Amino acid sequence: MSGGATGAHEMVAFCLADPGEAFLVPTPYYPGFDRDLKWRTGVELVPVNCESCNNFKITRNALEAAYVKVQEANLRVKGLLITNPSNPLGTVLDRDTLKSMVRFINDKNIHLIGDEIYAATVFMEPEFVSISEIIEEEDVECNRDLIHIVYSLSKDMGFPGFRVGIVYSYNDSVVSCARKMSSFGLVSSQTQHLIASMLSDDEFVDNFITESKELLFNRHKYFTWSLSQVGIGCLKGNAGLFIWMDLRKLLKEETFAAEMELWRVITNEVKLNVSPGSSFHCQEPGWFRVCFANMDDYTMKVALLRIRTFMLKNNEAMVPLKLCRPSSLKLSLSRSLSRRMDDFMSPGIMSPHSPLPQSPLVRART
Amino acid sequence: MSGGATGAHEMVAFCLADPGEAFLVPTPYYPGFDRDLKWRTGVELVPVNCESCNNFKITRNALEAAYVKVQEANLRVKGLLITNPSNPLGTVLDRDTLKSMVRFINDKNIHLIGDEIYAATVFMEPEFVSISEIIEEEDVECNRDLIHIVYSLSKDMGFPGFRVGIVYSYNDSVVSCARKMSSFGLVSSQTQHLIASMLSDDEFVDNFITESKELLFNRHKYFTWSLSQVGIGCLKGNAGLFIWMDLRKLLKEETFAAEMELWRVITNEVKLNVSPGSSFHCQEPGWFRVCFANMDDYTMKVALLRIRTFMLKNNEAMVPLKLCRPSSLKLSLSRSLSRRMDDFMSPGIMSPHSPLPQSPLVRART
Repeated sequence: MSGGATGAHEMVAFCLADPGEAFLVPTPYYPGFDRDLKWRTGVELVPVNCESCNNFKITRNALEAAYVKVQEANLRVKGLLITNPSNPLGTVLDRDTLKSMVRFINDKNIHLIGDEIYAATVFMEPEFVSISEIIEEEDVECNRDLIHIVYSLSKDMGFPGFRVGIVYSYNDSVVSCARKMSSFGLVSSQTQHLIASMLSDDEFVDNFITESKELLFNRHKYFTWSLSQVGIGCLKGNAGLFIWMDLRKLLKEETFAAEMELWRVITNEVKLNVSPGSSFHCQEPGWFRVCFANMDDYTMKVALLRIRTFMLKNNEAMVPLKLCRPSSLKLSLSRSLSRRMDDFMSPGIMSPHSPLPQSPLVRART
Repeated sequence: MSGGATGAHEMVAFCLADPGEAFLVPTPYYPGFDRDLKWRTGVELVPVNCESCNNFKITRNALEAAYVKVQEANLRVKGLLITNPSNPLGTVLDRDTLKSMVRFINDKNIHLIGDEIYAATVFMEPEFVSISEIIEEEDVECNRDLIHIVYSLSKDMGFPGFRVGIVYSYNDSVVSCARKMSSFGLVSSQTQHLIASMLSDDEFVDNFITESKELLFNRHKYFTWSLSQVGIGCLKGNAGLFIWMDLRKLLKEETFAAEMELWRVITNEVKLNVSPGSSFHCQEPGWFRVCFANMDDYTMKVALLRIRTFMLKNNEAMVPLKLCRPSSLKLSLSRSLSRRMDDFMSPGIMSPHSPLPQSPLVRART
């Protein structure tokens, strides 16, 4: 155990690599890795380029290309770091992709670090598959000393303030080394006691996760539907707290400079806080990450209204906004939606049916 | 704030020095520094030799000598690290020594890290003086950007399990950098809440520290008196949880090999866990650190009986053990002391007057 996933990731990097050695990381990836993994360890992160044309699938070809690139730069590749479910994509890795990655790292004799901190946020098919399941499969050969999983309670359980990170490694040397390093960021004994009590209540945990997934499902469905109504598409996601929003058609030109220009407009004029794809090392300009879960319904509606106004101004030919709910949206969101949009701009007015504001999960900083 | 003093020290080292740069550390010093400060930062620690002939005083000459030695080794000195009160000496640094050190680091333009985690354990005159007081004095010139203090609740308050370390720096860049690094070992929000409530109760804190000092005073007095009765001297201490025990006359020869041989006898035959001076980089063989506070009265008496038996065997000419209390020892320890020594060897028998066993302070692992 360590101080949050942040401390856990740094600890694993300290265990596995010396300064100047590199980890491959498929793009787009969580920008915090550039800070958490590199800063004090001196380790390098090398992006594995994934593309929108195949929904950012992590292919063997992309892994091989990145591997060769690192070798050409005279760096030593020590591992592959994946986040499943993905931040920022909001998708899970399928079984075949996971198998292919395990075969890749085994062939190269490099480590695989699986960040699975969003494992219990999968709110829709396909289901989550852990690395720990893949290495049990008959058709996968793997040296288990190469396998390490990072987990945390910050996302799935919404306890970021508890600072509980977990390293689950199949490698005894890593466990032994990490145990020694844990003195730099131990979880306090009374926090451990509280969490042990809480997590041993299976009913509470099951209910919490079930309810959380239901809330995420409904919020995600409503949010993506609302975006589609103003002509904004998203990568099809089923997990995590993020939507990977496609604003490519709003770019003045297909460059990262144009992406930054659009981001400035969204920040300064539309007054919304979204993150440009370039900050996730995305290789294709025009994608933006939206955190859809960490706000209450009122804030969400203000946000969607601002997006609508912006899109109306930018695109006269857009589909007219429909103020009715999609037929399959079951939650009570529709009732407040039928209010006049003007209402949403009055501060302090919240839907009495807001399902989310009190959940610790949605207040998690992601 | 960070995960314990361990995390705090590492954080400061990361902030102030690059790999290969050095900190001067007066000897004897806490051996954990060699692990905590060097392991992941790549920083070097260079001992400043202090000697028993002047009670291990940290002199300007000793500091200059170490400084020159580092320069000759083509290393860059980035700072001086002191622990006040001292672990393992159990003494406080006097005002003049502190002033001299501040002048030294200011002259050399290197940093001063003051580990003050035992500040509230001073149970006897002279009183504790913090670096933060010294730099306020009129006759001390000092660039405050060079001053950093590490604190923790593990020793003074006996809360090692809370993992609360604190860096108090006068340097804004260090504070800013350390704040960013704190994400690797934050204190959980509910632990912070609990501690804030506890520490804002002045009456509780005052009573706790007053009682703790009284217990330490009495235990220390009894322990050193008992050792003196079997002919063992100690460095005169007034703080901390340690006694710096002088066993030089028991060495077969004046070497660290002989010290280790004696240590093996104490561990394997006398069955006591004390630490040899060499592990604290002490330059003079024959000194041993005794943790006198982290045991209950029964255990202490067993320990003292074992020491007595050992000394009797080793030294026929020793002063006979007196089983009466020293005249100034006021606590109830004397009552159980008057029991026959045989009683102490029966497991499970504890003095009903044991003042210490329930205090978190004495259960702290030091």
